[in-house]
Amino acid sequence: MEDLPENSGKEPVTPRTDEEKAKVLNRLKRIEGQVRGIQKMVEEDRYCVDILVQISAIDSALNKVGHSLMERHTHHCVADAVKKGEGEEAIDELMKVMKQFSK
Amino acid sequence: MEDLPENSGKEPVTPRTDEEKAKVLNRLKRIEGQVRGIQKMVEEDRYCVDILVQISAIDSALNKVGHSLMERHTHHCVADAVKKGEGEEAIDELMKVMKQFSK
Amino acid sequence: MEDLPENSGKEPVTPRTDEEKAKVLNRLKRIEGQVRGIQKMVEEDRYCVDILVQISAIDSALNKVGHSLMERHTHHCVADAVKKGEGEEAIDELMKVMKQFSK
Amino acid sequence: MEDLPENSGKEPVTPRTDEEKAKVLNRLKRIEGQVRGIQKMVEEDRYCVDILVQISAIDSALNKVGHSLMERHTHHCVADAVKKGEGEEAIDELMKVMKQFSK
Repeated sequence: MEDLPENSGKEPVTPRTDEEKAKVLNRLKRIEGQVRGIQKMVEEDRYCVDILVQISAIDSALNKVGHSLMERHTHHCVADAVKKGEGEEAIDELMKVMKQFSK
Repeated sequence: MEDLPENSGKEPVTPRTDEEKAKVLNRLKRIEGQVRGIQKMVEEDRYCVDILVQISAIDSALNKVGHSLMERHTHHCVADAVKKGEGEEAIDELMKVMKQFSK
Repeated sequence: MEDLPENSGKEPVTPRTDEEKAKVLNRLKRIEGQVRGIQKMVEEDRYCVDILVQISAIDSALNKVGHSLMERHTHHCVADAVKKGEGEEAIDELMKVMKQFSK
Repeated sequence: MEDLPENSGKEPVTPRTDEEKAKVLNRLKRIEGQVRGIQKMVEEDRYCVDILVQISAIDSALNKVGHSLMERHTHHCVADAVKKGEGEEAIDELMKVMKQFSK
Protein backbone atom coordinates (compact mmCIF):
# COMPACT_ATOMS: atom_id res chain seq x y z
CA MET A 1 0.00 0.00 0.00
CA GLU A 2 1.47 3.30 -1.08
CA ASP A 3 1.54 6.23 1.29
CA LEU A 4 -0.81 9.11 0.69
CA PRO A 5 0.85 12.07 -1.04
CA GLU A 6 1.33 15.34 0.82
CA ASN A 7 -0.47 17.25 -1.86
CA SER A 8 -2.93 15.38 -3.98
CA GLY A 9 -3.96 18.41 -6.01
CA LYS A 10 -7.60 17.51 -5.34
CA GLU A 11 -10.29 19.77 -3.90
CA PRO A 12 -13.19 19.24 -1.53
CA VAL A 13 -16.35 18.49 -3.53
CA THR A 14 -18.44 20.95 -1.56
CA PRO A 15 -16.39 24.02 -0.60
CA ARG A 16 -16.33 24.61 3.17
CA THR A 17 -18.73 27.34 4.27
CA ASP A 18 -17.29 30.34 6.12
CA GLU A 19 -18.87 29.06 9.29
CA GLU A 20 -17.25 25.63 8.90
CA LYS A 21 -13.87 27.22 8.22
CA ALA A 22 -14.19 29.51 11.24
CA LYS A 23 -14.98 26.59 13.51
CA VAL A 24 -11.99 24.51 12.41
CA LEU A 25 -9.69 27.54 12.48
CA ASN A 26 -10.75 28.37 16.04
CA ARG A 27 -9.85 24.90 17.16
CA LEU A 28 -6.52 25.01 15.37
CA LYS A 29 -5.68 28.38 16.89
CA ARG A 30 -6.41 27.01 20.33
CA ILE A 31 -4.11 24.07 19.56
CA GLU A 32 -1.40 26.45 18.35
CA GLY A 33 -1.73 28.31 21.66
CA GLN A 34 -1.42 25.06 23.58
CA VAL A 35 1.77 24.18 21.70
CA ARG A 36 3.20 27.58 22.61
CA GLY A 37 2.11 26.97 26.20
CA ILE A 38 4.21 23.82 26.29
CA GLN A 39 7.21 25.69 24.95
CA LYS A 40 6.88 28.06 27.90
CA MET A 41 6.65 25.12 30.29
CA VAL A 42 9.88 23.69 28.87
CA GLU A 43 11.63 27.06 29.12
CA GLU A 44 10.57 27.38 32.76
CA ASP A 45 11.81 23.83 33.41
CA ARG A 46 8.41 22.69 34.61
CA TYR A 47 7.74 19.16 35.90
CA CYS A 48 7.91 16.52 33.13
CA VAL A 49 4.57 14.90 33.95
CA ASP A 50 2.78 18.27 33.88
CA ILE A 51 4.16 18.81 30.37
CA LEU A 52 3.15 15.30 29.34
CA VAL A 53 -0.41 15.88 30.54
CA GLN A 54 -0.54 18.98 28.30
CA ILE A 55 0.89 17.12 25.31
CA SER A 56 -1.72 14.42 25.70
CA ALA A 57 -4.43 17.13 25.82
CA ILE A 58 -3.18 18.57 22.53
CA ASP A 59 -3.06 15.12 21.05
CA SER A 60 -6.68 14.56 21.93
CA ALA A 61 -7.71 17.99 20.57
CA LEU A 62 -5.90 17.25 17.29
CA ASN A 63 -7.63 13.91 17.00
CA LYS A 64 -10.99 15.60 17.45
CA VAL A 65 -10.29 18.06 14.64
CA GLY A 66 -9.10 15.17 12.48
CA HIS A 67 -12.20 13.15 13.20
CA SER A 68 -14.54 15.99 12.35
CA LEU A 69 -12.71 16.67 9.07
CA MET A 70 -12.90 12.98 8.22
CA GLU A 71 -16.60 12.97 9.00
CA ARG A 72 -17.28 15.88 6.68
CA HIS A 73 -15.05 14.36 4.01
CA THR A 74 -16.95 11.08 4.09
CA HIS A 75 -20.39 12.69 4.08
CA HIS A 76 -19.47 14.96 1.17
CA CYS A 77 -16.53 13.89 -0.98
CA VAL A 78 -16.75 10.12 -0.50
CA ALA A 79 -20.55 9.93 -0.74
CA ASP A 80 -20.44 12.12 -3.83
CA ALA A 81 -17.82 9.91 -5.48
CA VAL A 82 -19.89 6.81 -4.72
CA LYS A 83 -22.93 8.39 -6.36
CA LYS A 84 -20.87 9.17 -9.46
CA GLY A 85 -19.66 5.57 -9.62
CA GLU A 86 -16.15 6.56 -8.52
CA GLY A 87 -16.51 5.20 -5.03
CA GLU A 88 -13.74 2.58 -5.09
CA GLU A 89 -10.87 5.02 -5.26
CA ALA A 90 -12.42 7.44 -2.75
CA ILE A 91 -13.01 4.65 -0.25
CA ASP A 92 -9.48 3.27 -0.65
CA GLU A 93 -8.13 6.72 0.06
CA LEU A 94 -10.37 7.08 3.12
CA MET A 95 -9.21 3.72 4.48
CA LYS A 96 -5.57 4.70 4.05
CA VAL A 97 -5.95 7.95 5.92
CA MET A 98 -7.95 6.20 8.64
CA LYS A 99 -5.17 3.64 9.05
CA GLN A 100 -2.58 6.39 9.26
CA PHE A 101 -4.64 8.02 12.01
CA SER A 102 -5.09 4.95 14.14
CA LYS A 103 -1.31 4.36 14.27
CA MET B 1 -8.12 6.21 39.29
CA GLU B 2 -7.99 9.97 39.59
CA ASP B 3 -6.88 12.09 36.70
CA LEU B 4 -3.50 13.74 36.83
CA PRO B 5 -3.65 17.43 37.81
CA GLU B 6 -2.75 20.13 35.30
CA ASN B 7 -0.17 21.59 37.62
CA SER B 8 1.36 19.33 40.23
CA GLY B 9 3.67 21.99 41.62
CA LYS B 10 6.52 19.49 41.32
CA GLU B 11 9.85 20.03 39.58
CA PRO B 12 12.16 17.81 37.53
CA VAL B 13 14.77 16.22 39.80
CA THR B 14 17.63 17.07 37.45
CA PRO B 15 17.06 20.45 35.77
CA ARG B 16 17.07 20.19 31.97
CA THR B 17 20.36 21.32 30.42
CA ASP B 18 20.26 24.21 27.92
CA GLU B 19 20.99 21.72 25.18
CA GLU B 20 18.08 19.50 26.20
CA LYS B 21 15.75 22.48 26.36
CA ALA B 22 16.87 23.72 22.95
CA LYS B 23 16.23 20.34 21.38
CA VAL B 24 12.70 20.03 22.75
CA LEU B 25 11.92 23.66 21.92
CA ASN B 26 13.06 23.18 18.34
CA ARG B 27 10.71 20.27 17.91
CA LEU B 28 7.83 22.17 19.48
CA LYS B 29 8.46 25.20 17.26
CA ARG B 30 8.36 22.96 14.21
CA ILE B 31 5.07 21.51 15.46
CA GLU B 32 3.69 25.02 16.02
CA GLY B 33 4.63 25.83 12.42
CA GLN B 34 2.88 22.70 11.20
CA VAL B 35 -0.29 23.69 13.07
CA ARG B 36 -0.17 27.11 11.40
CA GLY B 37 0.37 25.35 8.08
CA ILE B 38 -2.88 23.45 8.54
CA GLN B 39 -4.72 26.67 9.32
CA LYS B 40 -3.55 28.00 5.97
CA MET B 41 -4.71 24.81 4.25
CA VAL B 42 -8.18 25.24 5.79
CA GLU B 43 -8.33 28.89 4.76
CA GLU B 44 -7.41 27.95 1.19
CA ASP B 45 -10.08 25.24 1.23
CA ARG B 46 -7.55 22.51 0.48
CA TYR B 47 -8.54 18.89 -0.02
CA CYS B 48 -9.69 17.19 3.22
CA VAL B 49 -7.41 14.18 2.92
CA ASP B 50 -4.34 16.38 2.36
CA ILE B 51 -5.18 18.17 5.61
CA LEU B 52 -5.73 14.88 7.41
CA VAL B 53 -2.32 13.61 6.28
CA GLN B 54 -0.76 16.73 7.82
CA ILE B 55 -2.71 16.35 11.06
CA SER B 56 -1.53 12.78 11.37
CA ALA B 57 2.07 13.97 10.82
CA ILE B 58 1.72 16.46 13.68
CA ASP B 59 0.20 13.78 15.84
CA SER B 60 3.18 11.57 15.28
CA ALA B 61 5.66 14.42 15.92
CA LEU B 62 3.87 15.23 19.20
CA ASN B 63 4.00 11.62 20.27
CA LYS B 64 7.74 11.56 19.65
CA VAL B 65 8.29 14.62 21.84
CA GLY B 66 6.06 13.05 24.49
CA HIS B 67 7.96 9.79 24.37
CA SER B 68 11.34 11.47 24.71
CA LEU B 69 10.14 13.53 27.69
CA MET B 70 8.77 10.38 29.28
CA GLU B 71 12.07 8.63 28.72
CA ARG B 72 14.03 11.38 30.41
CA HIS B 73 11.49 11.56 33.22
CA THR B 74 11.80 7.84 33.92
CA HIS B 75 15.59 7.79 33.77
CA HIS B 76 15.87 10.79 36.10
CA CYS B 77 12.84 11.56 38.27
CA VAL B 78 11.41 8.05 38.59
CA ALA B 79 14.77 6.31 39.05
CA ASP B 80 15.75 8.92 41.62
CA ALA B 81 12.50 8.45 43.55
CA VAL B 82 13.02 4.68 43.56
CA LYS B 83 16.51 5.11 44.99
CA LYS B 84 15.12 7.33 47.75
CA GLY B 85 12.50 4.72 48.61
CA GLU B 86 9.70 6.85 47.15
CA GLY B 87 9.28 4.80 44.01
CA GLU B 88 5.67 3.68 44.50
CA GLU B 89 4.13 7.10 44.01
CA ALA B 90 6.45 8.04 41.14
CA ILE B 91 5.68 4.79 39.30
CA ASP B 92 1.92 5.17 39.82
CA GLU B 93 2.15 8.65 38.33
CA LEU B 94 4.18 7.36 35.38
CA MET B 95 1.64 4.61 34.71
CA LYS B 96 -1.21 7.13 34.73
CA VAL B 97 0.45 9.42 32.24
CA MET B 98 1.35 6.45 30.05
CA LYS B 99 -2.26 5.32 30.06
CA GLN B 100 -3.43 8.80 29.15
CA PHE B 101 -0.99 8.77 26.24
CA SER B 102 -2.02 5.45 24.80
CA LYS B 103 -5.68 6.53 24.64
CA MET C 1 -23.14 10.56 20.65
CA GLU C 2 -24.73 7.26 21.63
CA ASP C 3 -22.66 4.12 21.77
CA LEU C 4 -23.11 1.49 19.09
CA PRO C 5 -25.32 -1.42 20.18
CA GLU C 6 -23.83 -4.89 20.62
CA ASN C 7 -26.33 -6.37 18.24
CA SER C 8 -27.87 -4.11 15.66
CA GLY C 9 -29.97 -6.83 14.06
CA LYS C 10 -28.62 -5.70 10.69
CA GLU C 11 -26.97 -7.88 8.05
CA PRO C 12 -24.13 -7.34 5.58
CA VAL C 13 -25.54 -6.14 2.25
CA THR C 14 -23.46 -8.59 0.26
CA PRO C 15 -23.09 -11.91 2.12
CA ARG C 16 -19.44 -12.85 2.70
CA THR C 17 -18.18 -15.46 0.24
CA ASP C 18 -16.85 -18.74 1.66
CA GLU C 19 -13.37 -17.64 0.71
CA GLU C 20 -13.74 -14.34 2.58
CA LYS C 21 -15.07 -16.12 5.63
CA ALA C 22 -12.23 -18.66 5.57
CA LYS C 23 -9.64 -15.91 5.40
CA VAL C 24 -11.02 -13.98 8.38
CA LEU C 25 -11.57 -17.20 10.36
CA ASN C 26 -7.98 -18.25 9.79
CA ARG C 27 -6.70 -14.99 11.17
CA LEU C 28 -9.02 -15.21 14.16
CA LYS C 29 -7.95 -18.77 14.90
CA ARG C 30 -4.34 -17.69 14.84
CA ILE C 31 -5.21 -14.88 17.25
CA GLU C 32 -7.03 -17.35 19.51
CA GLY C 33 -3.89 -19.49 19.52
CA GLN C 34 -1.77 -16.47 20.43
CA VAL C 35 -4.08 -15.68 23.36
CA ARG C 36 -3.68 -19.26 24.58
CA GLY C 37 0.06 -18.92 24.13
CA ILE C 38 0.09 -15.96 26.50
CA GLN C 39 -1.87 -17.94 29.08
CA LYS C 40 0.87 -20.54 28.98
CA MET C 41 3.51 -17.83 29.40
CA VAL C 42 1.70 -16.55 32.49
CA GLU C 43 1.40 -20.05 33.94
CA GLU C 44 5.12 -20.62 33.41
CA ASP C 45 5.84 -17.28 35.08
CA ARG C 46 7.66 -15.96 32.02
CA TYR C 47 9.31 -12.55 31.91
CA CYS C 48 6.80 -9.67 31.91
CA VAL C 49 8.27 -7.87 28.91
CA ASP C 50 8.22 -11.06 26.81
CA ILE C 51 4.51 -11.37 27.57
CA LEU C 52 3.94 -7.71 26.76
CA VAL C 53 5.65 -8.11 23.39
CA GLN C 54 3.22 -10.94 22.61
CA ILE C 55 0.20 -8.94 23.74
CA SER C 56 1.22 -6.09 21.50
CA ALA C 57 1.56 -8.56 18.59
CA ILE C 58 -2.02 -9.79 19.17
CA ASP C 59 -3.19 -6.22 19.40
CA SER C 60 -1.70 -5.46 16.04
CA ALA C 61 -3.15 -8.65 14.48
CA LEU C 62 -6.62 -7.76 15.82
CA ASN C 63 -6.35 -4.27 14.40
CA LYS C 64 -5.50 -5.70 11.00
CA VAL C 65 -8.58 -7.93 11.03
CA GLY C 66 -10.67 -4.97 12.15
CA HIS C 67 -9.29 -2.78 9.41
CA SER C 68 -9.98 -5.32 6.70
CA LEU C 69 -13.56 -5.83 7.93
CA MET C 70 -14.05 -2.08 7.96
CA GLU C 71 -12.70 -1.84 4.46
CA ARG C 72 -15.11 -4.44 3.15
CA HIS C 73 -17.97 -2.86 5.09
CA THR C 74 -17.33 0.53 3.54
CA HIS C 75 -16.91 -0.79 0.00
CA HIS C 76 -20.11 -2.84 0.25
CA CYS C 77 -22.61 -1.80 2.92
CA VAL C 78 -21.79 1.91 3.13
CA ALA C 79 -21.42 2.42 -0.63
CA ASP C 80 -24.65 0.54 -1.19
CA ALA C 81 -26.50 2.68 1.35
CA VAL C 82 -25.19 5.85 -0.29
CA LYS C 83 -26.43 4.68 -3.67
CA LYS C 84 -29.89 4.04 -2.20
CA GLY C 85 -29.97 7.52 -0.68
CA GLU C 86 -29.50 6.16 2.84
CA GLY C 87 -25.89 7.20 3.14
CA GLU C 88 -26.19 9.57 6.10
CA GLU C 89 -27.01 6.94 8.67
CA ALA C 90 -24.50 4.42 7.31
CA ILE C 91 -21.72 7.01 7.36
CA ASP C 92 -22.57 8.13 10.90
CA GLU C 93 -22.36 4.52 12.01
CA LEU C 94 -19.01 4.06 10.25
CA MET C 95 -17.60 7.17 11.91
CA LYS C 96 -18.69 5.94 15.34
CA VAL C 97 -17.04 2.57 14.93
CA MET C 98 -13.90 4.21 13.56
CA LYS C 99 -13.75 6.48 16.59
CA GLN C 100 -14.17 3.51 18.91
CA PHE C 101 -11.27 1.82 17.15
CA SER C 102 -8.86 4.69 17.34
CA LYS C 103 -9.30 4.94 21.12
CA MET D 1 16.37 1.29 18.17
CA GLU D 2 16.32 -2.48 17.95
CA ASP D 3 13.08 -4.37 18.36
CA LEU D 4 12.51 -6.32 21.54
CA PRO D 5 13.20 -10.07 21.20
CA GLU D 6 10.36 -12.57 21.43
CA ASN D 7 12.10 -14.45 24.18
CA SER D 8 14.59 -12.58 26.29
CA GLY D 9 15.38 -15.55 28.53
CA LYS D 10 14.82 -13.28 31.54
CA GLU D 11 12.53 -13.93 34.50
CA PRO D 12 10.32 -11.73 36.65
CA VAL D 13 12.25 -10.57 39.71
CA THR D 14 9.41 -11.44 42.08
CA PRO D 15 7.57 -14.58 40.92
CA ARG D 16 3.86 -13.96 40.37
CA THR D 17 1.70 -15.21 43.27
CA ASP D 18 -0.96 -17.82 42.50
CA GLU D 19 -3.59 -15.16 43.03
CA GLU D 20 -1.93 -12.82 40.54
CA LYS D 21 -1.61 -15.59 37.99
CA ALA D 22 -5.27 -16.60 38.44
CA LYS D 23 -6.42 -13.03 37.90
CA VAL D 24 -4.49 -12.56 34.67
CA LEU D 25 -5.45 -16.03 33.43
CA ASN D 26 -9.13 -15.31 34.05
CA ARG D 27 -8.92 -12.18 31.95
CA LEU D 28 -7.07 -13.98 29.18
CA LYS D 29 -9.61 -16.81 29.15
CA ARG D 30 -12.39 -14.29 28.81
CA ILE D 31 -10.52 -12.70 25.90
CA GLU D 32 -10.04 -16.14 24.31
CA GLY D 33 -13.80 -16.66 24.61
CA GLN D 34 -14.45 -13.31 22.98
CA VAL D 35 -12.18 -14.19 20.06
CA ARG D 36 -14.12 -17.44 19.59
CA GLY D 37 -17.34 -15.41 19.80
CA ILE D 38 -16.21 -13.31 16.85
CA GLN D 39 -15.41 -16.43 14.84
CA LYS D 40 -19.00 -17.51 15.36
CA MET D 41 -20.25 -14.11 14.25
CA VAL D 42 -18.22 -14.39 11.05
CA GLU D 43 -19.49 -17.91 10.40
CA GLU D 44 -23.08 -16.71 10.84
CA ASP D 45 -22.40 -13.80 8.48
CA ARG D 46 -23.32 -11.23 11.11
CA TYR D 47 -23.36 -7.49 10.44
CA CYS D 48 -19.85 -6.05 9.95
CA VAL D 49 -20.25 -3.21 12.44
CA ASP D 50 -21.48 -5.60 15.16
CA ILE D 51 -18.29 -7.61 14.65
CA LEU D 52 -16.16 -4.47 14.70
CA VAL D 53 -17.73 -3.39 18.00
CA GLN D 54 -16.70 -6.75 19.48
CA ILE D 55 -13.18 -6.51 18.10
CA SER D 56 -12.78 -3.11 19.64
CA ALA D 57 -14.00 -4.54 22.98
CA ILE D 58 -11.32 -7.26 22.84
CA ASP D 59 -8.74 -4.68 21.94
CA SER D 60 -9.60 -2.67 24.99
CA ALA D 61 -9.59 -5.78 27.24
CA LEU D 62 -6.14 -6.73 25.91
CA ASN D 63 -4.83 -3.26 26.55
CA LYS D 64 -6.04 -3.45 30.14
CA VAL D 65 -4.22 -6.75 30.71
CA GLY D 66 -1.13 -5.26 29.10
CA HIS D 67 -1.29 -2.17 31.25
CA SER D 68 -1.63 -4.14 34.46
CA LEU D 69 1.32 -6.37 33.54
CA MET D 70 3.37 -3.29 32.74
CA GLU D 71 2.41 -1.76 36.07
CA ARG D 72 3.52 -4.83 37.98
CA HIS D 73 6.70 -5.06 35.92
CA THR D 74 7.65 -1.46 36.69
CA HIS D 75 6.87 -1.70 40.40
CA HIS D 76 8.86 -4.93 40.74
CA CYS D 77 11.44 -5.65 38.03
CA VAL D 78 12.28 -2.08 37.01
CA ALA D 79 12.33 -0.68 40.56
CA ASP D 80 14.47 -3.60 41.66
CA ALA D 81 16.94 -3.06 38.82
CA VAL D 82 17.19 0.64 39.68
CA LYS D 83 17.97 -0.21 43.30
CA LYS D 84 20.73 -2.57 42.17
CA GLY D 85 22.21 0.15 39.96
CA GLU D 86 21.07 -1.58 36.78
CA GLY D 87 18.23 0.82 36.09
CA GLU D 88 19.39 2.15 32.71
CA GLU D 89 18.88 -1.05 30.80
CA ALA D 90 15.59 -1.91 32.53
CA ILE D 91 14.18 1.55 31.80
CA ASP D 92 15.27 1.43 28.14
CA GLU D 93 13.48 -1.89 27.81
CA LEU D 94 10.35 -0.49 29.48
CA MET D 95 10.33 2.50 27.14
CA LYS D 96 10.62 0.24 24.09
CA VAL D 97 7.70 -1.93 25.11
CA MET D 98 5.64 1.14 25.95
CA LYS D 99 6.33 2.56 22.52
CA GLN D 100 5.34 -0.71 20.89
CA PHE D 101 2.09 -0.59 22.85
CA SER D 102 1.11 2.91 21.94
CA LYS D 103 1.44 2.17 18.22
